[in-house]
Amino acid sequence: MVKERCTSADCRLCDFLDSKPDLETSFNREPKQSVKCGFGKKGVCCRLCSNGPCRITPKSPRGVCGADADTIVSRNFLRNVAAGAACYLHVVENTANNLREAGLGNYATELKGLEMLDELAELFEVEAEDVNDKAVQVAEKVLADLYKPRYQKMELVEKLAYEPRLKKWKELDIMPGGAKSEVFDALVKTSTNLSSDPVDMLMHVLNLGISTGLYGLHMTNLLNDVMLGEPEITQDKVGFKVVDEDYINIVITGHQHTMIAHLQDALVTKEATKLAQEAGAKGFKIVGSTCVGQDLQLRGAHYKDVFAGHAGNNYTSEALVATGGIDLIVSEFNCTIPGLELVAQEYDVKMIAIDDVAKKASAEMIKFDPAKAPEITDKLIKAAVESYQNRRSQVEIDIPKDHGYDDVVTGVSEKSLRKFLGGNYKALIDLIASGKIKGVAAVVGCSNLTAKGHDVFSVGLTKELIKRDILVLSAGCTTGGLENCGLVSPSAASLAGDNLREVCEELGIPPVLNFGPCLSIGRVEQVAVELAKALDVDLPQLPAVLSAPQWLEEQALADGAFGLALGLPLHLALPPFVTGSEIIVDTLTKSLPEITGGQLIIDTEIESSADKLEEIILDRRTNLGLENEDECQRPA
Amino acid sequence: MVKERCTSADCRLCDFLDSKPDLETSFNREPKQSVKCGFGKKGVCCRLCSNGPCRITPKSPRGVCGADADTIVSRNFLRNVAAGAACYLHVVENTANNLREAGLGNYATELKGLEMLDELAELFEVEAEDVNDKAVQVAEKVLADLYKPRYQKMELVEKLAYEPRLKKWKELDIMPGGAKSEVFDALVKTSTNLSSDPVDMLMHVLNLGISTGLYGLHMTNLLNDVMLGEPEITQDKVGFKVVDEDYINIVITGHQHTMIAHLQDALVTKEATKLAQEAGAKGFKIVGSTCVGQDLQLRGAHYKDVFAGHAGNNYTSEALVATGGIDLIVSEFNCTIPGLELVAQEYDVKMIAIDDVAKKASAEMIKFDPAKAPEITDKLIKAAVESYQNRRSQVEIDIPKDHGYDDVVTGVSEKSLRKFLGGNYKALIDLIASGKIKGVAAVVGCSNLTAKGHDVFSVGLTKELIKRDILVLSAGCTTGGLENCGLVSPSAASLAGDNLREVCEELGIPPVLNFGPCLSIGRVEQVAVELAKALDVDLPQLPAVLSAPQWLEEQALADGAFGLALGLPLHLALPPFVTGSEIIVDTLTKSLPEITGGQLIIDTEIESSADKLEEIILDRRTNLGLENEDECQRPA
Repeated sequence: MVKERCTSADCRLCDFLDSKPDLETSFNREPKQSVKCGFGKKGVCCRLCSNGPCRITPKSPRGVCGADADTIVSRNFLRNVAAGAACYLHVVENTANNLREAGLGNYATELKGLEMLDELAELFEVEAEDVNDKAVQVAEKVLADLYKPRYQKMELVEKLAYEPRLKKWKELDIMPGGAKSEVFDALVKTSTNLSSDPVDMLMHVLNLGISTGLYGLHMTNLLNDVMLGEPEITQDKVGFKVVDEDYINIVITGHQHTMIAHLQDALVTKEATKLAQEAGAKGFKIVGSTCVGQDLQLRGAHYKDVFAGHAGNNYTSEALVATGGIDLIVSEFNCTIPGLELVAQEYDVKMIAIDDVAKKASAEMIKFDPAKAPEITDKLIKAAVESYQNRRSQVEIDIPKDHGYDDVVTGVSEKSLRKFLGGNYKALIDLIASGKIKGVAAVVGCSNLTAKGHDVFSVGLTKELIKRDILVLSAGCTTGGLENCGLVSPSAASLAGDNLREVCEELGIPPVLNFGPCLSIGRVEQVAVELAKALDVDLPQLPAVLSAPQWLEEQALADGAFGLALGLPLHLALPPFVTGSEIIVDTLTKSLPEITGGQLIIDTEIESSADKLEEIILDRRTNLGLENEDECQRPA
Repeated sequence: MVKERCTSADCRLCDFLDSKPDLETSFNREPKQSVKCGFGKKGVCCRLCSNGPCRITPKSPRGVCGADADTIVSRNFLRNVAAGAACYLHVVENTANNLREAGLGNYATELKGLEMLDELAELFEVEAEDVNDKAVQVAEKVLADLYKPRYQKMELVEKLAYEPRLKKWKELDIMPGGAKSEVFDALVKTSTNLSSDPVDMLMHVLNLGISTGLYGLHMTNLLNDVMLGEPEITQDKVGFKVVDEDYINIVITGHQHTMIAHLQDALVTKEATKLAQEAGAKGFKIVGSTCVGQDLQLRGAHYKDVFAGHAGNNYTSEALVATGGIDLIVSEFNCTIPGLELVAQEYDVKMIAIDDVAKKASAEMIKFDPAKAPEITDKLIKAAVESYQNRRSQVEIDIPKDHGYDDVVTGVSEKSLRKFLGGNYKALIDLIASGKIKGVAAVVGCSNLTAKGHDVFSVGLTKELIKRDILVLSAGCTTGGLENCGLVSPSAASLAGDNLREVCEELGIPPVLNFGPCLSIGRVEQVAVELAKALDVDLPQLPAVLSAPQWLEEQALADGAFGLALGLPLHLALPPFVTGSEIIVDTLTKSLPEITGGQLIIDTEIESSADKLEEIILDRRTNLGLENEDECQRPA
């Protein structure tokens, strides 16, 4: 019998979905798509030419052109990673461009993170007195690198990466040339009758991982910090309870926080509030959804008035709209799942796209241009008011106010954590050295519906890890799920092992540190670098592991490639579509430790995944000369 | 019963393949891949995320995320076109870069087409006295456009495109920004949970078509002309007969003629000949294969010594190697079909890749760098000699010397044709006006094995068209096939209708004009522009049609997008993988005439395809006030 609805670790969300039996969401489409194509899953299907599609089978081990499973799988994989890298690089390009325009006085927004601007200016050896000049020059350094041709190496890599890694990458010849051109040529390489070399294509994957990580993630974070303010550790509420029907509620979906820099300030001006009041509301609120919601949460200290709180992750977004409390959806990037359009239609919610890469079929297009920010903000405000007025009398409002938590700890960044620890990472290192904290696991990335259900694997794995005294750092939709399941609240300390619980209780922190959006995977990795630096070891020596158990998107694959290039062990609960190639699987899971020091671990079960990650941590501890408690040691 | 081998219009090739029953080529892999995935063919399979792969069926009309058939099909299609555009843009970027390096004195090669350089300098308003400065500046104009961000329109488009088309493209908002960034953002747009809008994605397809056509095709041709010499109409031999076992024979596979500018001159120096002679050969020859072979043929007037002649197209390449007469394969781009590696292993042929996008698993990588051309040439020559010495005693040489023709007319370009016609296109227009030539059909593009067999549809359609007094212009692997089937020799006039035969016999030309490689689809389209200019009409008014009957690659789709943006009717004998979307199919086949003036025509049968193309030509003639003969007119 086909199950009727995909499950979620978030039980209140399940109840809410059950209360709307006629609502179509991803949760009830998932069972209808449960019969999967075996060729597609293994990655051995090729549709690059009109002789195809071809599929590799024992009786037909090559496509018409002669491409074998290794070639087909690696082409598909590199193309997926290239698209994922392109997504993050699109984000950093727009972010740098917005900062540049702000510095030039064309984007009417105030720079809120001047300390970070100074740090970047120093790092990049930018000499400018004026804040605006500094912003322009910093942004242009980033843009110049992105636009270099492939045969010119990007310059900032040398400044952004950890020295031992630079050495390794040069040795492997995977230092990226101009990031956009590297993506471009990956697309070329994977086209019809071009590369057939799985090894070369895997190396290209690692190369793209580096630009994804250092630019797409890390630089986006820092440029965002300059424009939108640096994260400060604080507490906030999460879940559907954050939706207040007395306000005109706007949901932004995406990853490009600087695109709404003007809007978020404008929404809480007197003028805007007056407009809202005239329409019968108390004012405007942005309800957090997807990664940009987590970015707002991360910088919540700066957005107390306009930000309602983070309602949930990608696959919570459809249900969020079905509360009836949302009046406008503005998409600027993924994860704007197409199913949102159906629910928006059902609940009369206006949709607007401000970046055409995230154009939804049923959305109006109002192209963002920093120079026209006030005008665009006006249009968005007007659309929100109109939508509020049109719909509120038509639709049922049903907001489960008992969904979520009031005390999620947020605002953790590589800098705010350091500050919290007393100015350096020594306190954390001491806790690791003493065994109070056995090691660090980054549980990051997306949420999907197929690794046991929505957030089921992420929540389960996190619980297993903290139980074993492993501190969890989290970022991305994963965190959105953990938050709504209570694991990012201080009370979650009770679920941790005795040692970790004690630490958490003493410091008043949850056993899961919330770094915010998936972009902050870059911050989490920065913490690993800081730990490695403090210990004077390379990353593969650290008692630190990475898991993106419920990875969803092509972007996640590019993120993962960065983790592997950094030399970190990376666990996934679902394999990418590469299992049809022995060379690719063996290289990623077996040879990679000898290449970058990283390793791909595929494990579809929660407990055995935790076992493997713990084993790696214990091994690393032993190698670093740190003691392991008897009961934790695996059999000899 | 499964057929044992795909057939070919080239009967002598069939005989040759039959004489080698143990040889594995694409021809015997094709039947093994004849059972096709219906989802893949329709384009309704999505593997962008870990919830997938998803497939659209009547019972599951949306993927898990909510994407419907239109979204999935258009994402897949735009991504394919983006990859195809990327391929051609990679070629023009390298070509411009090589010209730039030559101008700077870093690439040790002589510029052979100074007249074309002057023309380009004038067109681009480059002011430089010195030839080298001029080359650098012309190349930099092209590179600057390619590297613009997406929000800046490319400047040369205004100079390269036909005025009425510019107007139309501006009206449709499809004028391309920086070409590489347009490709890049197409990749972003088609990634997980980003665009869901089929119409926006189709417009992006047209946008990419423009940069593919004007830069990837047209500019590559003109820059190649500057570096390698302009085409001159001449005759040459084709087919396996061009292989002379007394020489050390090198096959280049690809599209980047400027990469072998140094090599092709070096191979016929005294020093190189001496090396060859010491090894027991008479010298070196480059045997033409794939598009770069046709580029050499096109410029054959400049390469009489080194160029042996064009042996055949993409799917002829495996058999070519199986003649035993080839000693080295150098891949610089597609179509380097992976199956070539198997045959090369069998016949002990060394493989070297000089551009990593065309890296074959079993090839050595010697990265081309214009500044190191002499050194790279030395390595290639040494490898060729070594391979010759190692293999010639080991392998059987079996060259079918009766394969091919001696009198193929080649060297036709938009300029050489104009010159041939007496300095302008009036003579051709008069022939069209008088009805001696009913109209012009470009039969271009690739060769595949699935439109009735290797070159079967192309040859069949061409015969049908010339029989109806329609002059055929050809470029690409299609032409390679037509050449080896005798249609590009003057004697083919006998296959034409009475009127066209008379014209051909009078002028001593075949009824199929051979423009060379697929890059020359740009030249063919330039001829259409010249005819339109002379008639003072826009392209959709011309009695001219386009067919890429046996399109194979993603590049062909990008070419096709240019044709549709130009407003030309485009016939394909196999649909791209889009038939699962009504919106996409209807827009391309029905609405497009109202949008760009172009139209996609899918017809899988030769005669009915010819009927449709003829009907369009007759219609256009009527609209232009030209008389149609009674017997040609379709029923009212």
